[in-house]
Amino acid sequence: MSHSRGGAEPAVHDELEALFRPQSIAVVGASANPQSQGYEFVQALVEIGFPGPIHPVNPKLDELFGRKAYPQLEAVPGAVDFVISAVPASATLELVEGARAKGAKLIHLFTARFSETGREEATRLERELSSRVKEAGIRVIGPNCMGLYYPKAKLTFDPGLPAEPGDIGFLTQSGSHAFRVIGRGKERGLRFSKVISYGNALDLCESDFLDHFAEDPDTSIIAAYVEGIRDGRRFFSALRRAAAKKPVIVLKGGRSPAGHTAASSHTAALAGQMKLWRGAVRQAGAIEVRTINELVDMLVTFEYAGHAEGNRVAVLGGAGGETVESADLCSEAGFELPLPPAEMRAQLRETMPHAWDWVGNPVDASILAWGRRSESFAVMEMMAASPAYDAIIANVRGIEQALGRDDGGELFRDTLDRAKRLAKGSGKAAMFVLGEPESSEEWRWKGAIRVREELATAGIAVFPDMDRATHAMSRYLGYLARRRNGSSNGSR
Amino acid sequence: MSHSRGGAEPAVHDELEALFRPQSIAVVGASANPQSQGYEFVQALVEIGFPGPIHPVNPKLDELFGRKAYPQLEAVPGAVDFVISAVPASATLELVEGARAKGAKLIHLFTARFSETGREEATRLERELSSRVKEAGIRVIGPNCMGLYYPKAKLTFDPGLPAEPGDIGFLTQSGSHAFRVIGRGKERGLRFSKVISYGNALDLCESDFLDHFAEDPDTSIIAAYVEGIRDGRRFFSALRRAAAKKPVIVLKGGRSPAGHTAASSHTAALAGQMKLWRGAVRQAGAIEVRTINELVDMLVTFEYAGHAEGNRVAVLGGAGGETVESADLCSEAGFELPLPPAEMRAQLRETMPHAWDWVGNPVDASILAWGRRSESFAVMEMMAASPAYDAIIANVRGIEQALGRDDGGELFRDTLDRAKRLAKGSGKAAMFVLGEPESSEEWRWKGAIRVREELATAGIAVFPDMDRATHAMSRYLGYLARRRNGSSNGSR
Repeated sequence: MSHSRGGAEPAVHDELEALFRPQSIAVVGASANPQSQGYEFVQALVEIGFPGPIHPVNPKLDELFGRKAYPQLEAVPGAVDFVISAVPASATLELVEGARAKGAKLIHLFTARFSETGREEATRLERELSSRVKEAGIRVIGPNCMGLYYPKAKLTFDPGLPAEPGDIGFLTQSGSHAFRVIGRGKERGLRFSKVISYGNALDLCESDFLDHFAEDPDTSIIAAYVEGIRDGRRFFSALRRAAAKKPVIVLKGGRSPAGHTAASSHTAALAGQMKLWRGAVRQAGAIEVRTINELVDMLVTFEYAGHAEGNRVAVLGGAGGETVESADLCSEAGFELPLPPAEMRAQLRETMPHAWDWVGNPVDASILAWGRRSESFAVMEMMAASPAYDAIIANVRGIEQALGRDDGGELFRDTLDRAKRLAKGSGKAAMFVLGEPESSEEWRWKGAIRVREELATAGIAVFPDMDRATHAMSRYLGYLARRRNGSSNGSR
Repeated sequence: MSHSRGGAEPAVHDELEALFRPQSIAVVGASANPQSQGYEFVQALVEIGFPGPIHPVNPKLDELFGRKAYPQLEAVPGAVDFVISAVPASATLELVEGARAKGAKLIHLFTARFSETGREEATRLERELSSRVKEAGIRVIGPNCMGLYYPKAKLTFDPGLPAEPGDIGFLTQSGSHAFRVIGRGKERGLRFSKVISYGNALDLCESDFLDHFAEDPDTSIIAAYVEGIRDGRRFFSALRRAAAKKPVIVLKGGRSPAGHTAASSHTAALAGQMKLWRGAVRQAGAIEVRTINELVDMLVTFEYAGHAEGNRVAVLGGAGGETVESADLCSEAGFELPLPPAEMRAQLRETMPHAWDWVGNPVDASILAWGRRSESFAVMEMMAASPAYDAIIANVRGIEQALGRDDGGELFRDTLDRAKRLAKGSGKAAMFVLGEPESSEEWRWKGAIRVREELATAGIAVFPDMDRATHAMSRYLGYLARRRNGSSNGSR
């Protein structure tokens, strides 16, 4: 599969899908120490309810989570499709022999301390391992990674991850990024079809996973965090195919010399390479991002922002200076901010005589009545209904303030409902800015968390600040415009 | 004073300082409704303990917070130095007469709905008001603003603001930005000498306040949020003088056409003007920022980052992919990231035989032992002691995780103490990245808030993410370098 090029991707998809649907699993290096990964792998599979047998393997263990433990792989009864390895690097050659004996098709090597150390002996071991698994006909995820999170198939590497599946596929060379993207994403309403943390890519690599996600019917949006690329030509052809079918967000780690060193790969002329890389990512129709936060922002956008036909944006700016900041950030992001058109001005004249001539875009909430009679929402509703606008960005920071009032609970409820109708009812692209839930006052923080949770659960694209929202919206509108203009043949 | 140019700033300082030290205050438009600003102004002064008389004025009120209320200003016994106005715009001409009768020297007009509405009648009223106060010899802050927060003199406009003074002076045309900067700043350890929210600047303006802060012995760092500028030549000469003495951070609202409209001022050829503006701010030796978050970040940096002689930065990157991201962001911010020098490598060889050859810069915490034997901190301590580095940026995200362990409390305490020693003991510039306290799990959030509070209180520059930290450090090191090279004659 690492050698497939061109039109063989459906085969790649099916082959990986078969590997990712094991009937039985063995966790070698399972452990009774709750701080260890050998404990958590078993716990995670038990808790998510993996339907087949889960076999802990460790000569020092009798049982774990009610599952009988075996001294070595060969002692496990019946077939073992999938082997998860939490043993030290020195024990992995033996592990491959055991996996072969049990007819395993896939090994996930959580085991680390291979080529990423930069040490000769460790790199030699990785090469040896590579030829042994090839010989045995076993495919490998890793080493030095978290492995496979596939909630629909009840496979997961950590007990804390959501059990509900979603439609985002994420391939990542870094395990810590897998946790961050799933965790941050969860709080903003994202769920995943599969997350594959694949580390040093001894066998299965970025291009295999891209091909898989491109064809995967459960995956609508793809994100990739890559450090090294095994085969550039194959990667960009996989990227082009994937991006023609689905939005693909790409984060390259090791863009700088220091980052490159940190990512444990070495090349000369990095700056020039990065320029070529950027051009190739753009040409493939994918979207490059700089940070994990930005990657999550773009996933939230593609998942929830909705559709827009142009870049005329209606903005609820906040109050006073915040409105001015919103205006500057929106303009600098390249949006048009049309003032309310004549029909809407007439409507305003009737309903808000004190402010009708004064309401602009962004809308300044400080000049309008708030609370139950929230005029800001009324204005935004008019904008959402007007053909003068393609998209909405609403700074609704402080909805949770209502909880500080006597009648707050009901007002809070009403405002949330109104926000949901505004975002989802207009048929336009919409983003909500909530402010960071970083207050040190507990009731405010709890309120802010509740606002985020309710809006995210309702399928609204939520952002912690205007800067990140405008940046994401700008890239999104650019993507939609390129698709409209047919500069790429894909669609979503 | 609005006409002073050149060398008259000490006089400006003293004149304003006299105005800002009233013996007695009247709040006109005081109200018994706790939702109103006329209530909160009185409450705020009472609670912070303003030592002189506070007189609520309102014909419908008997008393407020135990202070007898008077039907109009003229009925207040004795002199009134400072009048705070929360009456509607239509009542302000009468208010000026009352203030004049009582010998008031300063009026703060919270009152809004003047020229900012863009309406002719309201603008005419503002002009009339302007000539009346000039005639009466009364100085004015406002209209359309929050006024004066001067904790050392026990003056404040909101009951929620900290009572302890600090050394940052902030002048802001926007009242909402006053709240955000004080609030966000508070959580990151910032305190203020004075914050002046001055709105439409009918009389006292940005240049007056800049001149004041430049000479103010209580102010070491100045921040300014300005939308319109009354007199560009005077402003830039004030800015040059101020920036020669103290760091000055400037945020311009209304950089874009839409922002300009939102800021209610109108000029042609804005883009060209902004280019000139940027050049002039840079030439004056001040630091321009784009958002309020960035403004707070720069204040935190100047207040707490400490001194650096160069741009060689030692970085604790986090774990795995985070380390690579840290490396990329640091490199893209223009830092040098030297690898550990030979002496340090020798020291590592002795103390961390499993990782000595592998430790890089950024330091990857995932390859080191953690918990009580935290090797990441040990490595950072060696870097802090090494002449190979000028500054430290440490991603310590997740210190609060310790609270999830049985022995967590003590480990948490130890780690915090160690972090404090690392930041403050090296004599090098230092910044700590904490991660956003945005978890929806309560114990994590509480732990994160506690980490931020303890480190901020210990005088450590804390940041929510690596992107913002590297951006601030980069601008800071640039500022220090310009000072070293004498490209500006100021110092701090």
